[in-house]
Amino acid sequence: MLPTKAYAAPAANIPLEPFQFERREVGPHDVQIEILFCGVCHSDLHQVRDEWGGSIFPMVPGHEIVGRVVKVGEHVRLFKPGDLAGVGCMVDSCRTCPSCREGLEQYCEVGFVGTYNGRELKSGAPTYGGYSNHIVVAEAFTLRVPDTLPLAGVAPLLCAGITTFSPLRQWKVGEGHRVGVMGLGGLGHMAVKLAVAMGAEVTVLSTSPNKEADAKALGAHKFVVTRDAEQLKRVNNYFDFIINTVSAPLDMSLYVNLLRRDGTMILLGVPPEAPQLHAFNLIAKRRRIAGSLIGGIEETQEMLDFCARHNIVSDVEVIPINYINEAYERMLKSDVKYRFVIDMATL
Amino acid sequence: MLPTKAYAAPAANIPLEPFQFERREVGPHDVQIEILFCGVCHSDLHQVRDEWGGSIFPMVPGHEIVGRVVKVGEHVRLFKPGDLAGVGCMVDSCRTCPSCREGLEQYCEVGFVGTYNGRELKSGAPTYGGYSNHIVVAEAFTLRVPDTLPLAGVAPLLCAGITTFSPLRQWKVGEGHRVGVMGLGGLGHMAVKLAVAMGAEVTVLSTSPNKEADAKALGAHKFVVTRDAEQLKRVNNYFDFIINTVSAPLDMSLYVNLLRRDGTMILLGVPPEAPQLHAFNLIAKRRRIAGSLIGGIEETQEMLDFCARHNIVSDVEVIPINYINEAYERMLKSDVKYRFVIDMATL
Repeated sequence: MLPTKAYAAPAANIPLEPFQFERREVGPHDVQIEILFCGVCHSDLHQVRDEWGGSIFPMVPGHEIVGRVVKVGEHVRLFKPGDLAGVGCMVDSCRTCPSCREGLEQYCEVGFVGTYNGRELKSGAPTYGGYSNHIVVAEAFTLRVPDTLPLAGVAPLLCAGITTFSPLRQWKVGEGHRVGVMGLGGLGHMAVKLAVAMGAEVTVLSTSPNKEADAKALGAHKFVVTRDAEQLKRVNNYFDFIINTVSAPLDMSLYVNLLRRDGTMILLGVPPEAPQLHAFNLIAKRRRIAGSLIGGIEETQEMLDFCARHNIVSDVEVIPINYINEAYERMLKSDVKYRFVIDMATL
Repeated sequence: MLPTKAYAAPAANIPLEPFQFERREVGPHDVQIEILFCGVCHSDLHQVRDEWGGSIFPMVPGHEIVGRVVKVGEHVRLFKPGDLAGVGCMVDSCRTCPSCREGLEQYCEVGFVGTYNGRELKSGAPTYGGYSNHIVVAEAFTLRVPDTLPLAGVAPLLCAGITTFSPLRQWKVGEGHRVGVMGLGGLGHMAVKLAVAMGAEVTVLSTSPNKEADAKALGAHKFVVTRDAEQLKRVNNYFDFIINTVSAPLDMSLYVNLLRRDGTMILLGVPPEAPQLHAFNLIAKRRRIAGSLIGGIEETQEMLDFCARHNIVSDVEVIPINYINEAYERMLKSDVKYRFVIDMATL
């Protein structure tokens, strides 16, 4: 077994603290990665506070992992020691159901194994995430990381990046499309960068006029203050797609009406109170609302390669591991542009 | 001007009564139709009671019209006196916006002209519907009616038929698809017949076990009592499409969870209170909710031709015009299988 250093939440609502545990030995199909950076996702916070229920403690969060391969099993073909590698939200799935066979492991009908707060399929042992010095992962769930991008900014691509890339690809977003982005956080800022790189006209929809300069700096072509009735009116029936990353209470109708005929709102965030769905707003213009969950392994690789080609990374604030509890408090206030990333050398 | 006999609501919530008015002369592009049958749509009731606001009185409802051509204008090419013809929900639109040019007049960006309770584009004169002895309509909004089907059953195809046919076509429903139908009324019973004819496996989802025999008689392959947790569980993650015709309050999540990955719920009904939309139910399986509004003229013709080929009509209860106020009361109790149709010879 491999002794591992980490930060863990000992129980719900207790601050994270140093923690030691053992990872499994590197099996014939496994890759061992020395973790260099790990992004801090809002779902880390939900799970350490057990806000979704069923959390497993002690919990080592982190599913935006980049690092360097230090050891590989005998059957591993795509990785060798010294390579850069990444791990996202999943470390395993059943690999046999229709969704897995289509490369959509995130919709595995048995349920994918989360990188942390999950259980290994055979042993039932809890999984521990990337707030740690290394990880052992099946090659099939390990991503190749391009060496041309700054690594700290690559880490959030493994969750925030793929979560926005996947629906943009599924819905074939590209030139000639008008894309609105709701919520300029970890997901939203990636949606802006990716949709711009795909050739779409991108508008950030924000309640706050203060974010205009940031939105433009990220590459957005337009900015609409949604509290300004005049501005809002100008984008009525306007968008082919709206990427909705908002996980706060919201008036869904206000935004659905910004879609043109046959336009689609893609939901990525889960508001605490379910908003009302006014059927007529969909019926009147044949509009659609669709969900999307992270992305499959093959698509995650495609996303990393796309980001390398277009020189896209997440905008990050690099922090030491002992800053994590404070970082969580700042995340709750949206006080981060746009993702905290832990420098794992500080562990 | 053409003297016309009709039944009209003199004002909101006043019973319908005999009414006389004048229709325009037959213009060079117009068709005059002697009305034989007119279906009674739930939206007739909403509008005579001004439940959507802005109703124009006196109101002659009716937009499920079949009859015989008695006169045509000099430029009319597709109709001659003696032909069967039909009129649905629309009698005009701008004809120049992108939606109209795509044959989607129901999404006309200027707004289509309703067959009744609308206003003619140039004159602003109110439109009067099919509870009358004849109608004058632009050829471009007149449908050819096959002479092989019982005419009373054809009338509801002009609204209930096209409203269900259009989304089934848009989403390319056919063999290998599992289709659920919520609500076995005017729309729902047409959805069953049409989806079966398109080759799908059709399941009626009903709160009431009493409707099983009726559902099967309409051609449904399966029947699920949605109040029975065991039955419901068996169709979890099951349907490719759910046609939701319910316009009563409902728990949307219960039904959305019956969609398989990438499944789509099509909304046709507008519940009085907007249901809650639980984003996670869409996200977890990449599900979709989409609206659809009646159908374009070309597609309505395609639907009528499809129904002729497959020998499909609506199940109707034929009534005399002086029964209309009682029919409305029975509609409110869903006491009709499945559409009232007025025999206009009784006027």
